[in-house]
Amino acid sequence: MPTVVQDMLTTYPADLGGVDRQKLARCIEECVACAQACTACADACLSEEAVAELTKCVRTDMDCADVCGTTAAVLSRHTGYDANVTRAVLRACATVCKACADECEAHADRHEHCRVCAEACRRCEQACDDLLSSLG
Amino acid sequence: MPTVVQDMLTTYPADLGGVDRQKLARCIEECVACAQACTACADACLSEEAVAELTKCVRTDMDCADVCGTTAAVLSRHTGYDANVTRAVLRACATVCKACADECEAHADRHEHCRVCAEACRRCEQACDDLLSSLG
Amino acid sequence: MPTVVQDMLTTYPADLGGVDRQKLARCIEECVACAQACTACADACLSEEAVAELTKCVRTDMDCADVCGTTAAVLSRHTGYDANVTRAVLRACATVCKACADECEAHADRHEHCRVCAEACRRCEQACDDLLSSLG
Amino acid sequence: MPTVVQDMLTTYPADLGGVDRQKLARCIEECVACAQACTACADACLSEEAVAELTKCVRTDMDCADVCGTTAAVLSRHTGYDANVTRAVLRACATVCKACADECEAHADRHEHCRVCAEACRRCEQACDDLLSSLG
Repeated sequence: MPTVVQDMLTTYPADLGGVDRQKLARCIEECVACAQACTACADACLSEEAVAELTKCVRTDMDCADVCGTTAAVLSRHTGYDANVTRAVLRACATVCKACADECEAHADRHEHCRVCAEACRRCEQACDDLLSSLG
Repeated sequence: MPTVVQDMLTTYPADLGGVDRQKLARCIEECVACAQACTACADACLSEEAVAELTKCVRTDMDCADVCGTTAAVLSRHTGYDANVTRAVLRACATVCKACADECEAHADRHEHCRVCAEACRRCEQACDDLLSSLG
Repeated sequence: MPTVVQDMLTTYPADLGGVDRQKLARCIEECVACAQACTACADACLSEEAVAELTKCVRTDMDCADVCGTTAAVLSRHTGYDANVTRAVLRACATVCKACADECEAHADRHEHCRVCAEACRRCEQACDDLLSSLG
Repeated sequence: MPTVVQDMLTTYPADLGGVDRQKLARCIEECVACAQACTACADACLSEEAVAELTKCVRTDMDCADVCGTTAAVLSRHTGYDANVTRAVLRACATVCKACADECEAHADRHEHCRVCAEACRRCEQACDDLLSSLG
């Protein structure tokens, strides 16, 4: 069954300008999932007894949540598409997803929420890189 | 297979305070999907020849995207939970989802993206109402 | 000298629908300032040695930042104005600003950033209430 | 009188890591002002009779609003600072501010809100570039 992201792409009333539709849908979906996971992980860290050791993780989670949310929004707009903007935003998103995945992986063995979040960040980093490559 | 939203709830390291876990997960998921659909619908409206008749729809879509995104974030945080805040945010979200669903439905027969978006708004409105009722 | 918020209101090409222009500008400005202060306060709390006692404050700061940012955006849009949406969003914003001001005030004597943030929240709460009253 | 942004920087309880405090405050303030101006400009475009000719402007405004809002948030956090993330986000922000300033300037003579918005974008682009240079 198609997702809402796919349905919105299918019903877009104009041309998408040669973008790889599947990579685009995938990237939007990973950005949206990653933003939510990072918001939840930041809060889960705040509930850990060892919160004092997790402050960098909370901060990176929040940066990643903000950048992924913005990237999902930019990618969901096609009217008046500007490739420079899309590329710069995707690069920023891949960078912060990598940073957050690295940070969360560092304590994924002790905190399950960091493991789940790191996986979401890694998938999003990959999806951004894939879409970037396809943009030529 | 559990969604990332569900995985993040399952791995939360503290008590969720008696909230209905399924209604909470559902509401977060609908908010996230609705925010994306509304962002995409606003942009799709901008690509319609009849854009001049759709300006109210674009505006309502943007309001709904912002409020749903914020509601998803507030619901994804459990540490230091404040029921007054959650209730006020859910009420605002149900209100704007209803407004956006009504607006999109008014031209759903002519614009497929408005039909898909209206359905996402209606599901989100319902999920907010369901969660609100369960909060007592 | 007029602020950018005021300049954008002055150059709006259509009627603002009887809203009190000064209360509206004031409310947008306070929302924008409060969102930034709350984001910075959440991060400042993370840098305190006593972070374990400040986790509720971090969470409330983040909720307040998100809701104030969304409220500023909703108030900055006038096309296709829907009074129900505006009122519900303003009520949610006043509620979360009050919660965050209360929380930050509770340790404003120990943490200067909480004192500054509490003042921003109180001003924003008041500006939301003032605009709400003027909407009738 | 110091702004709230400056007050929050002054009361930050830890070291800011050698960043140029004045350039940082300036950049946060310009991002916050630009995000609001772009949200308002997008809506003002929707109220123009010639909206059909302004759809690219609406889209660029929305992208710029989202990226500037995210940049302001990332810059407002200092705990666990990651220079790679900050640089990538600042580059994306400068790129989208330039794109939006170019677009708005193209019809600044006909639409006062585009003139005000273009000026806000240009100041924000400059502030991002200045902060980027100072980061070395």
